[in-house]
Parts: sequence; structure tokens; C-alpha cells
Amino acid sequence: MKSQSEKSKQFAALHQAGNSFVIPNPWDIGSANAPGARFDHEYYRTTHMPLVKDRMGDSCKSYTIDKGLAGSAPGTPAIYVGMCHIFCDSVEVFQKGFGPHAQEIMCDVRNYTNLTPVMQISEVIVG
Amino acid sequence: MKSQSEKSKQFAALHQAGNSFVIPNPWDIGSANAPGARFDHEYYRTTHMPLVKDRMGDSCKSYTIDKGLAGSAPGTPAIYVGMCHIFCDSVEVFQKGFGPHAQEIMCDVRNYTNLTPVMQISEVIVG
Repeated sequence: MKSQSEKSKQFAALHQAGNSFVIPNPWDIGSANAPGARFDHEYYRTTHMPLVKDRMGDSCKSYTIDKGLAGSAPGTPAIYVGMCHIFCDSVEVFQKGFGPHAQEIMCDVRNYTNLTPVMQISEVIVG
Repeated sequence: MKSQSEKSKQFAALHQAGNSFVIPNPWDIGSANAPGARFDHEYYRTTHMPLVKDRMGDSCKSYTIDKGLAGSAPGTPAIYVGMCHIFCDSVEVFQKGFGPHAQEIMCDVRNYTNLTPVMQISEVIVG
């Protein structure tokens, strides 16, 4: 069983570096629509993401938060309840800033949702 | 069978307006990983998104493009091959700008991918 810190390092180590990259932190609708699913947008905005920024320091250049309102098909909910993008200069910078605090940050997730976040590394083509 | 224009109007009409909103245009990994899947990032950046901006005019305040590099689990690809966000002042403004050109824009999708885009309407909480 790997620790969160080890997982984070492994996660970052696998990824190529771009000139700039982004980590969308969207939430799976399958989980979002499960009975009893919750997502506290207020906590996410006022506590969780500021915690991430505080711990990452200058390695997090900036972040954005989107709140899903609706899907594209009539009557469907948004695929992702919430989404954040964390902007860093490189994967290495992300790893250095996030890795040491991964466990604390991931433990805080339970404070605003019972959903499982999905993540990916992207390169910013047009920002 | 509804036309693209009708679908677009129906799509927009169903959504609540926020102070600001965003349309992520991510791509389903299920399609992305299908045999024979293609996505021309160069065309997307230099032709498709500029086309969208040109047709929408001032109703599109700005847009961003992300290129997926990798997923979070070791050895997994990014969930979305590409993603764009289109920023508008409201759903109504989006509808007015996108609706009349929906058919032309959607027809251009085939020029850079054989995947099916997924969309959602979001409110920008932190931009």
C-alpha cells in the first residue's frame, strides 16, 4: 500500500513536462449522481482550494474553479459537479509543491465531498 | 430530426444563467481510445477554435485550449485528448452568438477528429 506522498510522486514522475501545464480536477458524474452524493461548493471555494494554494506556495501560479450547471443534452446534469485547474510551470514544479502536502490535501477532500476526484495533466495550448 | 441550430437553441434554453459561465468542450476518453481515433491538435488550434471565435464575435469574450498529456493513474492516458473553455457573459449571449453558426461549427468538427465531443455549462467561481 503506497502512501499518498508516494502516489503523488509516482503520479508526477510519469508525466511529461510542457512549457506550462494544468491539472483539471473534475468530478465524475457517475459518482455525482449516486444516491447520497454531496459536494460542498462553499467549502471547496473558501477552504479546500485556498488550502491547496497555501501549501503549494509559489509552485501554484494560479488556479480556477468552475461549478457545473448543466449538460448538453436536454434535462441532463453537468458531467462534473465542480472542476479546478491548477497552473504550474512544469510537472516537476507541481511535484515539488504538491508532493509534500499530498496526504493533507487528499484527506481534506472528505470535508466537501464523498465523490472520487478524477485528474489529468494537460498542456496549456491557448491560455 | 432536429437541425443543429434547433439543437443549439434547445441546449442553451435549458440552462440557467450565471454572472459568467464557461463551456468546457472536453472529449470522452472512451472515444479517444477507440481504434482509429484521431484528433488533429494543430487544426483545432489554428483553424477550428479561431473559426468559433470569428463566428461568435464579441459574444465569445475569450477561450482557452488544453491538450491532455496523461491521466492520474500510472500508465494511463489523459481522460480528455483536448479541452476548450468558451467564456461568455451569460447563456443568452452564448446562444445568440453560437446558435446561428452551430451547423457550420459542428460540421467543422469532422475536420479534426472522429470523436464525439462532450459539453457542459459551468459557472466560473474563481477565474
